[in-house]
Amino acid sequence: MTYVAPLKDMLFVMNELAGLKQINALPGCEDATPETVEAILEENAKFCGEVIAPLNFPGDREPSFWHDGQVTTAKGFREAFKAFGEAGWQGVQHPVEFGGQGLPKLVATPCIEMLNAANLSFALCPLLTDGAIEALMTAGSGEQKQTYLENLISGKWTGTMNLTEPQAGSDLSLVRTRAVPQGDGTFKLFGTKIYITYGEHDMAENIVHLVLARTPNAPEGVKGISLFIVPKFLINGDGSLGERNDVHCVSIEHKLGIKASPTAVLQFGDHGGAIGTLVGEENRGLEYMFIMMNAARFAVGMQGIAVAERAYQKAVQYAKERVQSRDLSGSPGPVAIIHQPDVRRMLMAMRAQTEAARALSYVTAAASDAAHHHPDEAARKANQAFYEYMVPIVKGWSTEMSIDVASTGVQVHGGMGFIEETGAAQYYRDARILTIYEGTTAIQANDLVGRKTARDGGAVAKGIIAQIRRTEEELAAYSSGDLAAIRQHLSAASKALEQVVDFVVANVKSDVKSVFAGSVPYLKLAGVVLGGWQMARAALVARQKLDQGEGDAAFYTAKLATARFFADHFLSTAPGCRALITEGSAGVLALSEEQF
Amino acid sequence: MTYVAPLKDMLFVMNELAGLKQINALPGCEDATPETVEAILEENAKFCGEVIAPLNFPGDREPSFWHDGQVTTAKGFREAFKAFGEAGWQGVQHPVEFGGQGLPKLVATPCIEMLNAANLSFALCPLLTDGAIEALMTAGSGEQKQTYLENLISGKWTGTMNLTEPQAGSDLSLVRTRAVPQGDGTFKLFGTKIYITYGEHDMAENIVHLVLARTPNAPEGVKGISLFIVPKFLINGDGSLGERNDVHCVSIEHKLGIKASPTAVLQFGDHGGAIGTLVGEENRGLEYMFIMMNAARFAVGMQGIAVAERAYQKAVQYAKERVQSRDLSGSPGPVAIIHQPDVRRMLMAMRAQTEAARALSYVTAAASDAAHHHPDEAARKANQAFYEYMVPIVKGWSTEMSIDVASTGVQVHGGMGFIEETGAAQYYRDARILTIYEGTTAIQANDLVGRKTARDGGAVAKGIIAQIRRTEEELAAYSSGDLAAIRQHLSAASKALEQVVDFVVANVKSDVKSVFAGSVPYLKLAGVVLGGWQMARAALVARQKLDQGEGDAAFYTAKLATARFFADHFLSTAPGCRALITEGSAGVLALSEEQF
Repeated sequence: MTYVAPLKDMLFVMNELAGLKQINALPGCEDATPETVEAILEENAKFCGEVIAPLNFPGDREPSFWHDGQVTTAKGFREAFKAFGEAGWQGVQHPVEFGGQGLPKLVATPCIEMLNAANLSFALCPLLTDGAIEALMTAGSGEQKQTYLENLISGKWTGTMNLTEPQAGSDLSLVRTRAVPQGDGTFKLFGTKIYITYGEHDMAENIVHLVLARTPNAPEGVKGISLFIVPKFLINGDGSLGERNDVHCVSIEHKLGIKASPTAVLQFGDHGGAIGTLVGEENRGLEYMFIMMNAARFAVGMQGIAVAERAYQKAVQYAKERVQSRDLSGSPGPVAIIHQPDVRRMLMAMRAQTEAARALSYVTAAASDAAHHHPDEAARKANQAFYEYMVPIVKGWSTEMSIDVASTGVQVHGGMGFIEETGAAQYYRDARILTIYEGTTAIQANDLVGRKTARDGGAVAKGIIAQIRRTEEELAAYSSGDLAAIRQHLSAASKALEQVVDFVVANVKSDVKSVFAGSVPYLKLAGVVLGGWQMARAALVARQKLDQGEGDAAFYTAKLATARFFADHFLSTAPGCRALITEGSAGVLALSEEQF
Repeated sequence: MTYVAPLKDMLFVMNELAGLKQINALPGCEDATPETVEAILEENAKFCGEVIAPLNFPGDREPSFWHDGQVTTAKGFREAFKAFGEAGWQGVQHPVEFGGQGLPKLVATPCIEMLNAANLSFALCPLLTDGAIEALMTAGSGEQKQTYLENLISGKWTGTMNLTEPQAGSDLSLVRTRAVPQGDGTFKLFGTKIYITYGEHDMAENIVHLVLARTPNAPEGVKGISLFIVPKFLINGDGSLGERNDVHCVSIEHKLGIKASPTAVLQFGDHGGAIGTLVGEENRGLEYMFIMMNAARFAVGMQGIAVAERAYQKAVQYAKERVQSRDLSGSPGPVAIIHQPDVRRMLMAMRAQTEAARALSYVTAAASDAAHHHPDEAARKANQAFYEYMVPIVKGWSTEMSIDVASTGVQVHGGMGFIEETGAAQYYRDARILTIYEGTTAIQANDLVGRKTARDGGAVAKGIIAQIRRTEEELAAYSSGDLAAIRQHLSAASKALEQVVDFVVANVKSDVKSVFAGSVPYLKLAGVVLGGWQMARAALVARQKLDQGEGDAAFYTAKLATARFFADHFLSTAPGCRALITEGSAGVLALSEEQF
């Protein structure tokens, strides 16, 4: 049940692929020296492994529960969250001005991975709080920042995102919650919000709800949605906690997984109105929410990588311990199942996908840092565009693969995997939410097709493909062996991706349904090709280190083999996937509703 | 939560693809006229839909439980099982001589599908009982048949398979349970068996355990395993129930899914010895068990198809009801999500895989009937070989796809899919056992590679590929449209399969680990190609019916579109899959144990 953070891989990716040194050289990132970063990661790994990870399995067996409007979180969560806040982990990426550590996103990202690998349910509370901080940083007034940020960043208070309503899930235009101005600068909110993660709990003194609602006479649809702060307890002029606000948790959901994370139904205004204040300007709520959602989407992608890593570690441990059947090439007696080729294949598939997604996400995080801190405007713009293209892929692909990886983890355990006390099944259940919340994979794919590909005529996508071509050229220096095989697959895969981008751009107006019928396959293809690209870059570095006799040879040979496996088993699927996108829509759309 | 059996598709497959008429013409199958079969299926559909299906969700919420050695099954199960037995459903495929209906396997197969779609947990009891009946039919003595068969076939008693022990899972050579001869023809058994489905319950008067054990001085390994009958209650000379035997349920497992099905840990002989009788000859237990296991494996494949169908029906219902977002090509207001292209794609993927697996399994069932009843020995042999090649594919592929389909079903539901009260999550949890029990997918793949492909130098596999080529020739009559597209994909896919068969045969001796590293991908590829072949055959029939203006045009156009979708989205992956098998083993096997 233990979790040991893969620090070696994390640092390799940060240093060799994501360019930690270059990020450290940016103005505002001076503190993030490789040495400091390594020390921070080691400390975080220790905290996550020792304090948070042990709460994961018990929290699943005895989840958070609701009674009479109160939510009692799983055993140990309160104390752990207090320790988390006190150690400053909530503040890693937030401004020093409000008590944070002001470190780059590239440094916060492995910390987020570790926390989620340790305990997905626990980590959701900081994840949502990060979102609230981000939204207030972007759109909050000076007073709002003063009132809320320090307490959120210290872990004294926590934050939530209130979007969904029973009739408004993926389609936020249907939001009905009302916000009525009181003439004193405050609003009274009335409505029901569902699926509110940590919408009620006992881990912090106050809960800061960020709520989408409509003011009177607001335009219909998404253009009439505003964002409000509605704290659980009102805040007095001196910053102390005042009256209980009129927002109440009427139930929490009985879920397939992440059971220790309370998912609340919140009633706003059943007893006179929940008092809130407007964030930013009226009717721009969705825009602000999107800023926080981009960060949250990236973080959910990290959740996928995290649970995949955890499932992988558990499967490896079992495969090394479970003795069953002889070795295929002969052995005196039964051997550990890790000797069986199919168990190897499963473990390699888990490992390769996890490492590829990790590399892609860290590189994306570094782009976000460069987008914020680079002195050159063109570089900022280019990095921002890269980041924005990647977010739906990091979210969509990492989470889709995490379900597959967690399922494979169960399979490695055989019958034991199906028994809850083993723990492998929890990852299979927990992972299942990740492709759904913060926008389903289809919603990510819509974003990828619409805003990220079609809008600029595929320019950003093509720019990234050009970067892949440069990696292919570097690989061309090797005429045989793993790197040559990787190059062959990467080259076919990047061609496939380019064809899909061309298809999307050419047809999105004339044949919108066909293009969107292939949107999720496009997203998955992009994930595979871009993840495979990062593995190819990793393989190049590993080969060079080995040739130079530098560093940990076992690590670098494993990295090479894992990159080779990724190319052989995942990049190889790209051309088939291309065909189903560009030629596969006929069957998707042929049936009438009645024929289903 | 309802289940409506897809009778139209079942009858189409039976009549047009599996050759019900030809089966009906075989000696011993005269009763299975198309009219009788249709009437039986309608009756079974009614029973499963009205009596069994409503128990599925409640049985998951309030599962079977253990107390003090007794297992109380989920509410309603006792009464339903009584009704099931009394209606004669346990006996569909069993001999008239012992009270069965003596119908072909082709007719029993849709009945098994319906029962499992209605309630996977419930259906396991009849499924295991079928296995016990099969084993006793094959290897039991006249007296054993007289004693047990009628009561098993009537549903008065039930049967179990006792293979697994804590140290002996996939590797039965490690079985340690001892059987000590008592000199009176009986044996006393001592040992622990785990994962015994319906090993204890309250649904029948007696439970007939079939148990693998070792006699004193038996050879080591699988050649020293014998099969025993150990009834829960001993049977008096007059057939009445006698003393309680020394086999006791010490606990049942807390599982991820199929919670209403009690999975028992059984102790044999803790109080003096469990009395059993030998089935067949000593040391041939594994051989007998394999007979019953082939039937059980086929049935587990049907479970995969069943749960996939159920998940599909639920997803379709939700997609038609849930209103969210406008139609992409414009609509006055939000529309049901079935209008969204990605929801369509998901539903089509669920539907196409389910239909393909159904067609393949029914055709396999028909081959089993021909293998038993065909007057011509060569035809019997050919059909037996076809059946045996197909069993690991039907088991392995149908169950692997069922996990994917059930997971997609959750995705169609969005956030609601993650809430247990919706019911979609149950299928995701239930399906997860199917690739594990009765031999994991890797065990099926070992069987496919070793006994079913390598042993005859690929002859049977090549014979089947030759049949696919004939279908391709029929498709060649159509130079455009769906059938031409299907032909193109089928042709590439069957070539890929052939290359893999050649690779397996050529390398299984010289490079055994590389071949087995690709064993599961080979199994999945075979499933896709053979399933796609059946869909292509279905498309040909549909096209002909449409051209002739015969029958239900909506059904046939849907079948054509579904076959097209299967070709575009699944057959299209075959060439990529070929490459990873024949060229993809390097990365699988490269790491040392320590590098994981």
